Amino acid sequence: MLPPGVSKAEFDAAIAEFKKIVGNEWVFTSAEDVALYRDAYSQVWNEPEERLASAAVAPASTEEVQAVVKTANKYKIPIYAISTGRNLGYGGAAPAMSGSVVLDLKRMNKIIEVNERHAYALVEPGVSYFDLYRYIQEHKLKVWIDCPDPGWGSVIGNAMDRGGGVTQAAFRNHFEAHCGMEVVLANGEVMRTGMGALPNSKTWQQFKTGFGPYVDGIFSQGNFGIVTKMGFWLMPQPEAYLGGYVHVFKHEDLIPLIDITTRLENQLVINGMLHFGSPILGPLGPGQVALADAPPPPAELTALLAKPGGPPMPDLEAYAQKAGKGLWGVMVQFYGPQKVIEAQWEHTKQMLSAIPGVKFEDGKRLTFPLTTQKIDQTVDKASFGIPSLSIFAGVARQITGTPWTGHVGFSPIIPRTGEAVFEAQKVFADISREYGMPVSPLVVPFTYWQRSFVFLFLFPVTHDIEANKKNREAFRKLVKVSAEHGWGEYRTPVIYQDDVQDVYSFNNHALRRFHETIKDAVDPNGILSPGRYGIWPKHLRKA
Amino acid sequence: MLPPGVSKAEFDAAIAEFKKIVGNEWVFTSAEDVALYRDAYSQVWNEPEERLASAAVAPASTEEVQAVVKTANKYKIPIYAISTGRNLGYGGAAPAMSGSVVLDLKRMNKIIEVNERHAYALVEPGVSYFDLYRYIQEHKLKVWIDCPDPGWGSVIGNAMDRGGGVTQAAFRNHFEAHCGMEVVLANGEVMRTGMGALPNSKTWQQFKTGFGPYVDGIFSQGNFGIVTKMGFWLMPQPEAYLGGYVHVFKHEDLIPLIDITTRLENQLVINGMLHFGSPILGPLGPGQVALADAPPPPAELTALLAKPGGPPMPDLEAYAQKAGKGLWGVMVQFYGPQKVIEAQWEHTKQMLSAIPGVKFEDGKRLTFPLTTQKIDQTVDKASFGIPSLSIFAGVARQITGTPWTGHVGFSPIIPRTGEAVFEAQKVFADISREYGMPVSPLVVPFTYWQRSFVFLFLFPVTHDIEANKKNREAFRKLVKVSAEHGWGEYRTPVIYQDDVQDVYSFNNHALRRFHETIKDAVDPNGILSPGRYGIWPKHLRKA
Repeated sequence: MLPPGVSKAEFDAAIAEFKKIVGNEWVFTSAEDVALYRDAYSQVWNEPEERLASAAVAPASTEEVQAVVKTANKYKIPIYAISTGRNLGYGGAAPAMSGSVVLDLKRMNKIIEVNERHAYALVEPGVSYFDLYRYIQEHKLKVWIDCPDPGWGSVIGNAMDRGGGVTQAAFRNHFEAHCGMEVVLANGEVMRTGMGALPNSKTWQQFKTGFGPYVDGIFSQGNFGIVTKMGFWLMPQPEAYLGGYVHVFKHEDLIPLIDITTRLENQLVINGMLHFGSPILGPLGPGQVALADAPPPPAELTALLAKPGGPPMPDLEAYAQKAGKGLWGVMVQFYGPQKVIEAQWEHTKQMLSAIPGVKFEDGKRLTFPLTTQKIDQTVDKASFGIPSLSIFAGVARQITGTPWTGHVGFSPIIPRTGEAVFEAQKVFADISREYGMPVSPLVVPFTYWQRSFVFLFLFPVTHDIEANKKNREAFRKLVKVSAEHGWGEYRTPVIYQDDVQDVYSFNNHALRRFHETIKDAVDPNGILSPGRYGIWPKHLRKA
Repeated sequence: MLPPGVSKAEFDAAIAEFKKIVGNEWVFTSAEDVALYRDAYSQVWNEPEERLASAAVAPASTEEVQAVVKTANKYKIPIYAISTGRNLGYGGAAPAMSGSVVLDLKRMNKIIEVNERHAYALVEPGVSYFDLYRYIQEHKLKVWIDCPDPGWGSVIGNAMDRGGGVTQAAFRNHFEAHCGMEVVLANGEVMRTGMGALPNSKTWQQFKTGFGPYVDGIFSQGNFGIVTKMGFWLMPQPEAYLGGYVHVFKHEDLIPLIDITTRLENQLVINGMLHFGSPILGPLGPGQVALADAPPPPAELTALLAKPGGPPMPDLEAYAQKAGKGLWGVMVQFYGPQKVIEAQWEHTKQMLSAIPGVKFEDGKRLTFPLTTQKIDQTVDKASFGIPSLSIFAGVARQITGTPWTGHVGFSPIIPRTGEAVFEAQKVFADISREYGMPVSPLVVPFTYWQRSFVFLFLFPVTHDIEANKKNREAFRKLVKVSAEHGWGEYRTPVIYQDDVQDVYSFNNHALRRFHETIKDAVDPNGILSPGRYGIWPKHLRKA
């Protein structure tokens, strides 16, 4: 396979130059090697639409990245930068355009600095959450990372894709928690942003915006440059932790439950992630997936949920009352000094007592640092800044019927209100019924971000071409219907990036055209990750 | 006066078109009218370097802004957008390049929405902090704004200049607290960012980043577009407030004082702005300026401070001990439920007890909403989201010697440590001595941002050309020396924007060249605010 518009001779010349730059052993061209860059969770597996790399190059330093980019420019070779390629469900290591050479940054795995006093880290793209966690433990530093679950991915890669974690709001937003970047531009030049633009700056990781236009954001979810270093603010280790559970029993109670807890989070009274859910279905909180060993719901509930047209709410309410578990519930979390978090939980209960019949339940109380034994026993490790892979076991256990080989995430942003949840449940349930997809009528979205919900749900990926086709149709329908309701996705797998970019169409796609103007200016040969997030260089753009 | 390279006929034709767009009465060309756009705090007042407008145009809507921009493009007229032009000390209403037509957005003063449930506002550029505050009071909404002091400026204007306020960290950073923009581009097209790019979006002010590159940052401190609407997250009104004072008595105590309180702020235990200072000099906190009626320091202290080569620290320490007031101190602030903030203050005292001899003093306790009477009595109104102009009285009172007609702010970012403060005090005192400028050896910088200090100090502006010249020399020297120490300014008056942009020179000014590449692409005629923050369009760029 060759990149579009590139001759065999040009491609070979580029590969030869890449080898000179990074060493023969770090340029991959054999079918077996290149196959490793396929997206294992691809919904177009073995179909013509599958995005396949032509080769891969793994540089070891910023200088090598610069040289590779210069060569790519010379021969007009599209290069698709990945950090570690672990964002399974959103595209993995495969490029947005077939024929691209994957620029694999995994060898750039230096942890340049972890500063306890100022609570920040400066890392390269190949550094995983596990790497950073281990470094912090080895050096006994009193700072926490905020990691996604699973935590095997790249700290930079996840931030550049604007992923989220599960600790405090200021750290859960991985892109927003960054401070300072080093970027290799399409012309091969290296640039530093924020205070990094000041030689010998003393505050590169301490003050985000520097002087003049704040450019960092345009490198996220885009293809305007290759980030080779990035700083992140870390969470100072708290003294203690307290989790609490709240149960409410009427269907409409979800509305005040969300309103009151959201206000408390925005007031910093609740300072951990809120996990909404339906306690009658099983345990709440980040540990719920890994706890999926729990017995299935009783037959009575299963029967209610299976009723055609959805479960009758009065029956569900009666069931919840009888079971003594909320029809809706939320796990609230507090990090801080013991006395403070106890007072915060007390106040939270007081505010929520406005909901008739509300019940409270204490969750766990912890003090930090955790002992090794305690860590082993902890199911929801990510809530304490500890990366793990246990979520895979949970997901695996949930499989019934046709075996999934993976999943892709559909992730629209909806308002953080009960009304919006009810509307989204209905809209998505209708479509899911049409396509035979399993969407629970009691699902409540995630609160990765402070003032909105992510209505994330996972679509199965199989190796059955017909099943994948049908699922893709369903996915594309969801993108459209969702947009009609004013809900846009915040992130999507590579094969849907054009679809999603298309619905962000205000004023005849003014924003996309603005991206394209910048793209053509900063990358005139269009070599950096063509097609990523729906941004194509001029010569590849559809009319 | 005409814009550079524009003929009288072209200029007149443009003015005639502007009149058609906005109405005759909203195009200002007479000498008296245009003089109102002079920077009253200009350090080049009446000198050839003073930046003067050729005319001003005040559109009333986004559509009128679009039409003005299109006309400006047609005749290549530089237009300099201001919101209300109230950022005195950083440039005021005057353009960065003489001959520019000021685009005065003051008539676009609609408060489009203030949403209590989601705690946000959506406003136009002409809306001042006073306007927004009044609206919130009239509608009895339980949300606070975060305003700078003085609070007469534009909410959007201050954010676009990346100004700061004095409440909680998440709201103090006015640019970071924004969510969603509407921008008129140089080609006259209107674009919406974030979720605003999705037509009928339900979360424009609730989710910041949308899909694809996050472009908002490049419009701040720059000249790539004209913001015509912008959303801001507001602070939900807290239940109560508690202020506390901490005194330490040894010179070196400043180091742990800063370290411990910074960690507590980053842990959200202290959730209001920290005001560091030297209690022996007078009261701490945001009210200190307005409290300047207080008697001057005793003769003994004045004599110590005036000693050549600076005050001997052992003598100052002895003085502080005797006076029972800290040589260094900090005012800490807590917003939240009564029980929570009391526990936070307790914990803060416990942590700070690690400093031998530390003393604590309770400040005021308030519950909200404040009564009108209470508001009138409150000196530090901005700490409670209430805009005021009282700081002007404070500044005025401090004038001795040659009358100031204004001031400009020198505002380098330094690390948030005692060591950095000591070093900066020394460096800046040396220069200030050289130029006869008053810099106290006991000054401690501001903490507008969580992980760095702003070593803001005000330079006098007079109507004496010789004095201004000398002060400009001092200012430029400070910019250079500061940069040599790794401290960069976060913002500067228009006449120094080239100087400051110059020191952000990593890799042969890679960042500025990147800005220029974008500028040429998105504004090929270079009509939008040429020179702002040191970014010039191609035809005006120095070789």
